[in-house]
Order: sequence, then structure tokens, then C-alpha cells
Amino acid sequence: MTELDVRTLQRRLAAFADARDWGQYHTPKNLASALSVEAAELLEIFQWLTPEQSARVMADPETAPRVADEVADVLAYLLQFCEALGIDALAALAAKIERNESRFPVPGSTGDEDRHSSE
Amino acid sequence: MTELDVRTLQRRLAAFADARDWGQYHTPKNLASALSVEAAELLEIFQWLTPEQSARVMADPETAPRVADEVADVLAYLLQFCEALGIDALAALAAKIERNESRFPVPGSTGDEDRHSSE
Amino acid sequence: MTELDVRTLQRRLAAFADARDWGQYHTPKNLASALSVEAAELLEIFQWLTPEQSARVMADPETAPRVADEVADVLAYLLQFCEALGIDALAALAAKIERNESRFPVPGSTGDEDRHSSE
Amino acid sequence: MTELDVRTLQRRLAAFADARDWGQYHTPKNLASALSVEAAELLEIFQWLTPEQSARVMADPETAPRVADEVADVLAYLLQFCEALGIDALAALAAKIERNESRFPVPGSTGDEDRHSSE
Repeated sequence: MTELDVRTLQRRLAAFADARDWGQYHTPKNLASALSVEAAELLEIFQWLTPEQSARVMADPETAPRVADEVADVLAYLLQFCEALGIDALAALAAKIERNESRFPVPGSTGDEDRHSSE
Repeated sequence: MTELDVRTLQRRLAAFADARDWGQYHTPKNLASALSVEAAELLEIFQWLTPEQSARVMADPETAPRVADEVADVLAYLLQFCEALGIDALAALAAKIERNESRFPVPGSTGDEDRHSSE
Repeated sequence: MTELDVRTLQRRLAAFADARDWGQYHTPKNLASALSVEAAELLEIFQWLTPEQSARVMADPETAPRVADEVADVLAYLLQFCEALGIDALAALAAKIERNESRFPVPGSTGDEDRHSSE
Repeated sequence: MTELDVRTLQRRLAAFADARDWGQYHTPKNLASALSVEAAELLEIFQWLTPEQSARVMADPETAPRVADEVADVLAYLLQFCEALGIDALAALAAKIERNESRFPVPGSTGDEDRHSSE
């Protein structure tokens, strides 16, 4: 269970790449490409589905592990990217949530309701 | 500091979207699209850089916050996607690392050296 | 009207980049990144829309030119990528259509109906 | 040879999809997703390559047909997307090139040299 925190996983990924001498490939530019490619592989699973079908993918025993696997790949490259550049992903997200809480006040307080934004 | 774990951030993102009634937009399909779009926005920062320039982006006071911001966006959509489908991203990554440790043995033990794989 | 064929546009794009000395940035790797980034910008317009809303985007005077503009960007980078590597995009597509006509026979002839494939 | 113009290929793609009753899947939103996924598959070929290696991919008999194949996929989905929304891709690109010729004057005329833009 101590394995399941972000920093531990980030360190295991770094050790994994180091042991295989993959550091040479892991420039921030290449890792950003790989992250984008893995995110597209996740999207590929959903591209022809209706919104309703997309909500049921985990009920399909063939699709569910593919989805989890692509999630793992996206997170792996995101953490390796952050490791390469010394970025604390969780701190960046916490800061972003705080900014968004002021940028997008809860509707009712403003009247600008029901309009989704890109956050 | 208790804010900075994945599960807490995931819950804050869910509360944030609920308060704004954004759940209607947050189908797994749409969240996978948004994740992919944000990953591409991160890549955009690097697209014309040399590998060497890409390693120095955090030294540039204009670029560094943009990179952290896109990292936050990618992580935000990844966690919202996982929330929508009940996926434990950290467990998925831990399982993947274990599988990869058998799939890509450390070179020297096998002789299949210096070949990067898509992991 | 002679402007509107692929080869002429490809040549104009090459002349445009040459005159600005952008050839140094236009490695196939960078152009493939840029193509992927522009395709994601096109997707961004659609990410929160329902299938029905997505079919009506050209009726919206604000959205229509954005869509056409992103289409132009995707095509521009695709043609510059092909120029850099000496690929004839139209011939590649014609060959692909021919292969797909044998790989995916019209249903009725086979009974394998109504299953969309990734082509 | 009359096959190798954009409009003819666009019509063949439409006939291909119609014959297989794939129109139901081909919403603009889904086609934009598929375009983005195919662009990422093209990028995947380049993600770990150096800029120099990326310039030599067509010399490798295994990689060259994969590159051409992904180019065909990107163009196929771009043309199907344009067909679904009634967009003339070549006209959109010609218009874009004209706008860019005023937005990015040739250096020397302005002194703003050697700075690549996102066009």
C-alpha cells in the first residue's frame, strides 16, 4: 500500500528507465509527445461510441483492462515528464483548482449559469 | 499538505464540477477528448524546440508557469476521467510497472540492450 | 482556380517556409508534432458538444470560421510533412482505399454487418 | 490518374462509408476524434527519434510504408470530416496561406527575423 502514492511511483518509473538506460530518450519534448500519443490511444477506445456507450465501457470485460492500461500509460508519461523537469504535478493541480474556484464562481452567485468552460 | 494526495484532489475536482452542474458534459468520451486536447497543448510548447532547448524550459520565467499549468490540466482531466469510470489510476500504474518489469528485463541479463520500447 | 490543387498548395507552403528560413524547424518529427497539435485544436471545438450539436457547427457564424481555419492548419502541416519526406499524400490515400475495399467488403456479401472498423 | 484529385478521393471515401452504413458513426465530433487519433499514430513513429533520425525514416523499408499509411489515414479522416460539414479543405488552406502572407512578412522587409511562429 505504501506503493500507491505518486512520489513512490514516480521514483519507481525513474529507476525503471535508468536501469534500461532510457534516459537518453526521455527528453521533455519526447515525453510530451509520448504523453500525447498515449492520451490519443485512450481516446481511440471511445471514438465511435455514443455518450451512453462510453459510460458503460468498464462493464465490458474486454474493454475495461484496455482502459485501465491506457490510464496507466498516460499517468506514467505525465510523471516521467514531471520528473525530468522537476515539476510537482499535485501541487500544480492544487494551485490550478484554487485559481479556477475564483475564475468560475458557482452559478447562482453570478447568474452566468450552465456554461461549461475549458477550465 | 493533506490536500496534496490524489484522492483528495480527485474529490475536489468532482465537487467543483458538481457545483457547476458540469456532470452532464463529463461523459467518459468527452473527458478522454479533453485529456487528449490538454496533452496536445502541453506538446505545443515543445513542438519547435530542439531536444536541448526542451530540457531548459523551466529556466524561462514565461514558459515555466505555462508548462506547470498544462500539467495541471492533463492531471485534472485524467482524474475526472478516472472518477467517472471508477478507475484507481495509481493502482493501474503500479500494476503496469510490475508487468513492465517482467516484459522489459534489465539489459545485461538478456543481451537485448539499448532498445527503447513503448513500455 | 489553378491554385486549388494539392501540389500547387504544397509548393506555396514550401516557398512560404523557405522565404522565412523556417526549414530548420521543419524536421519530420516537428511537423508530425505540429500536425497532431492542430488536429487536437480542431477536436477542442467539439469536445463538449453532443453528436447533434457537432453536426450543426457550421450554422454558427462564430464557430464556422474557426473550424475551417483548423482544417487549413491540419492540411498545411500534413502537406509540409509530406513535402519534407517526399510522400505523395493522394497516392497514399488512393492505395489505402483500394486495400480497404478488400479488407472491409460491403455487408450483405459477407454477413459481417454493422461493425465499424478503424479502417 | 483522374483518381488522384482530392474531390474524387473524397467522393470515394463517402461511397465507401455509405456502402457499409458507417454514416451513423461519422458525426463531425467522432471524425475529429479519429483524425486526432490518426495524427497521434503518425507522431508515435517519431516520438523517440532524434531530429536527424526523423529525417531518414523513408530510407527504412519497414518504417516507410507505416508512415505513408498513417498519412493516408489522416487525410482520409480530414476529407470525411470536410465532407460531413461541407468544408472545402483546399479553399480553406488557400485562404489561410493568403492571410499568413500578410501576417508573417518575409524577414528583411521587417527585421523580425528567424522567429518561427505557429502560423
